Amino acid sequence: MSYFENFLNANKAYVNLHGTAHLPLKPKTKVAIVTCMDSRLHVAQALGLALGDAHILRNAGGRVTEDMIRSLVISQQQMGTREIVVLHHTDCGAQTFKNDEFTAYLNKELGVDVSDQDFLPFTDVEESVREDMAILRQSPLIPKDVIISGAVYDVDTGRMTQVFP
Amino acid sequence: MSYFENFLNANKAYVNLHGTAHLPLKPKTKVAIVTCMDSRLHVAQALGLALGDAHILRNAGGRVTEDMIRSLVISQQQMGTREIVVLHHTDCGAQTFKNDEFTAYLNKELGVDVSDQDFLPFTDVEESVREDMAILRQSPLIPKDVIISGAVYDVDTGRMTQVFP
Repeated sequence: MSYFENFLNANKAYVNLHGTAHLPLKPKTKVAIVTCMDSRLHVAQALGLALGDAHILRNAGGRVTEDMIRSLVISQQQMGTREIVVLHHTDCGAQTFKNDEFTAYLNKELGVDVSDQDFLPFTDVEESVREDMAILRQSPLIPKDVIISGAVYDVDTGRMTQVFP
Repeated sequence: MSYFENFLNANKAYVNLHGTAHLPLKPKTKVAIVTCMDSRLHVAQALGLALGDAHILRNAGGRVTEDMIRSLVISQQQMGTREIVVLHHTDCGAQTFKNDEFTAYLNKELGVDVSDQDFLPFTDVEESVREDMAILRQSPLIPKDVIISGAVYDVDTGRMTQVFP
């Protein structure tokens, strides 16, 4: 049983609503949102985004990794974004493990030694937002005039609360 | 002028609709969707996802990078997902540049030498989906019984079309 077919079916109904329209490649608000993959956060709805408004980047934890910076550089230098929002959330999967236990588990479960890899867990969600804002601010690939904001999303209430650097 | 305040304001209205409810950390469908940051793709709407249904992972191009695999390992081993959908799209920003020209531009614009970095551009969108499905299939960190599907999303029509490996 695969869910992929369900998504294809649901998409048929979406296509009828969507109609045909070409929106520009460059996001209207010039914002890129860096957030977590969590299933309980629907970014467009929670932030009031229309189609075409903003880039949405998501990984485990919403962490600013090398790949996140690769994506932001493309977002900024190819598609003109000038603002970044780092949005982490309560009850995050990245708060459920520690690197050493997790890599030991992966070694046992998958037979792969990834003991040197950082899976980027965190304890305090406001602190993780601050850390990632600081990584962005210090990156030579992110221009100094780019606006960087941070917030925490509450998955139980849907509320986004600002975090200051 | 920052858009962040607009998002905070829009979020106030969303909170009123959301109410308070605790959904489980583990996604209901056990699916993780790997896709692009593009502003014209609202994943939850396009695939008919409710809150809590699926992990959504997004970077420039929807490419399977080391960070994407880090996120998928957490998704699978900590939160029980067992299916992956690789979803790229038409008119992608990753089709607008070549590595050598882009890194030369970054050197000139930002004064940073990233000439050894692959920004993962592609030409043929079906081919890029197949490439990324193959990377997942070959990864020792992704169990062999995980279901992997691929598709292309048309940003003009909203239609998702399956790509076979």
